[in-house]
Amino acid sequence: MTTQQLIDEIHRKKSFLCIGLDVDINKIPKRLLLEEDPIFTFNKAIIDATHHLCVAYKPNTAFYEAYGIKGWQSLEKTINYINHKYPEIYTIADAKRGDIGNTSTMYAKAFFEDLSFDSVTVAPYMGKDSVEPFLAFEDKHTILLALTSNQGAFDFQTQKIDSEEVYKTVLKTSKTWKNAHNLMYVVGATKAKYFKEIRQIIPDNFLLVPGVGAQGGNLEEVCKYGMNDSIGLLINSSRGIIYASNEDDFAEAAAKNAQQLQAQMQTILE
Amino acid sequence: MTTQQLIDEIHRKKSFLCIGLDVDINKIPKRLLLEEDPIFTFNKAIIDATHHLCVAYKPNTAFYEAYGIKGWQSLEKTINYINHKYPEIYTIADAKRGDIGNTSTMYAKAFFEDLSFDSVTVAPYMGKDSVEPFLAFEDKHTILLALTSNQGAFDFQTQKIDSEEVYKTVLKTSKTWKNAHNLMYVVGATKAKYFKEIRQIIPDNFLLVPGVGAQGGNLEEVCKYGMNDSIGLLINSSRGIIYASNEDDFAEAAAKNAQQLQAQMQTILE
Repeated sequence: MTTQQLIDEIHRKKSFLCIGLDVDINKIPKRLLLEEDPIFTFNKAIIDATHHLCVAYKPNTAFYEAYGIKGWQSLEKTINYINHKYPEIYTIADAKRGDIGNTSTMYAKAFFEDLSFDSVTVAPYMGKDSVEPFLAFEDKHTILLALTSNQGAFDFQTQKIDSEEVYKTVLKTSKTWKNAHNLMYVVGATKAKYFKEIRQIIPDNFLLVPGVGAQGGNLEEVCKYGMNDSIGLLINSSRGIIYASNEDDFAEAAAKNAQQLQAQMQTILE
Repeated sequence: MTTQQLIDEIHRKKSFLCIGLDVDINKIPKRLLLEEDPIFTFNKAIIDATHHLCVAYKPNTAFYEAYGIKGWQSLEKTINYINHKYPEIYTIADAKRGDIGNTSTMYAKAFFEDLSFDSVTVAPYMGKDSVEPFLAFEDKHTILLALTSNQGAFDFQTQKIDSEEVYKTVLKTSKTWKNAHNLMYVVGATKAKYFKEIRQIIPDNFLLVPGVGAQGGNLEEVCKYGMNDSIGLLINSSRGIIYASNEDDFAEAAAKNAQQLQAQMQTILE
C-alpha cells in the first residue's frame, strides 16, 4: 500500500486508529479455547467488529512466536484474513527487527513477501546497513523506533550525543539513508511534549504512536503537536480495545471502545 | 545451561567456537532440495560433523522466519536435535529482539521455554524494562548488542553521550539491571581495538564475537584483548564454516574449517 492510499483511507473513514492485535491466550474469553485456533478466532471476531473504525492492524509478533509453530500459523491466518477480506486496511508487523545487511534482507522478505505485511517495525541500534535492506522494498514502509513509550526510553534514547538526544540523532541520520521516503517512526504517546521538536526534524513522515490509553498518553496532545498536513499519525491502541471485555461480548465491547476513539479522531479531523 | 558448565565445556573441548547456522536455501547443495526439510537436513549434517569442535550453535532466526511456518519448523527441529543429541552444546537464538516489558516476556518464553534455547540476543535501544524480562529467567543468558561488527555500528553505537560512546553507556547501564549476572554481550571481532576498554567495564561477562573470517576480524587480536580468566569468549563463524563447500562434501568441508579454528583456539588456550 502506498502512503497516499493510507492517507485517502484515513479521510474516508475519518479515523487514524491502528488496533494492536497483541493476543494473550490467558486474557481471551474461555470459550474460545475450545476452538481449533483460539487466537485466530479471537482476531477474526475483533477484525470483523472493528474494520470500519480503524485504518490499520498491528499484530505484535512476540505474542505469536510465544506459541511456536501454532502461533506462527495464527499470525499467518490473521494477516491473510485481513489482506483478503479487508484489503483497504494497512498492516504493520510489530517485530522490532534489525540485523546486519544480508540478515535484514531475510527479515524483510519474511514480513513483506512471505506474510505480505505493508510495514514492519525496526530497531535502529545497528545503523544504516541494518535498516536500508528493509527500505529497498518499494511501497512497503519501515517503521523505525525513535522515542518509545516505555520508561526504558530514558536509558539511552534521551541521552545526549554531542548535546543532542540519541533519538534525534536517529531521526536526522536516518533521513539521509537510501529510500528514506519509505520510513515511518515509532514515537510514544507518553512523550507528547517531544512531538513538536520531532516534527521540526521529520515534518512529513508518518508516526506510529503507541501508548494512548493503558499507558497514559493523551490523544489531543499528540495530535496538537504531531499532526501534519497529511495527518501523519497512526494512533495505536491494543489492550484498551481488544480486552474491553473477556466475556462473550468481547467483539462488541472492542468495537464500542474503538468507536469512541474514532469519534474523538473525527472531531479532531473536522 | 549455567555459565560454569559452558566454561567446563570450553576446557574439555579446547574450543570456544560457536557455529552460526544461518542457512540460505540458495547456498546449500542442490541435492538437499529434494529432501522434505532441506534446511534441517543441512543443519543436521553440519552439526553431526562439527559438534566435537565447537561449544555452541547459533541459528539466526531471520533465516528461518524468511520461510514462514516451514522455516519455523526447521528451527524447532534443529534446536530439538541439538538439545537431545548433544545436550552439552550451548545454544544461542540470534534473534535481536526487544520490546516493552510484557512483550519481552513473550519473546523470552518463545526462545527460553517453547524452543529451549540457552540464550537469546537482545537489542538495547528500548532500555532497562525491555531487557530485564529476559534476565528474569535463571540459567538462561541474555546477550545484549553492545558494539556490533557491521559498518552501521558507527552510526550510533560509537557516537558520544556526554563524551562517552553509546555502547559504553549501554555496557555501564546494563550492569546495574536486575539479574545482570545473566548478561553476555555482542562485540564484533572487526572492532578488536575496542576490546581492552570494554574489558575494563565488564571484566567478567562472556562476549559473543561475530565477524571473524568473512567480515575480516582477527582471532588472535580478539583473544589478546578480550579473553578473561574464565576465557569469556564465544567466537562465532557462520559462512566461513557452513558454506566451506556447496558440493556433496559440504559437511566434511565444514568440519575441516571448524577444525582449523579449533586448533588455533587450542594453541591460544595452551
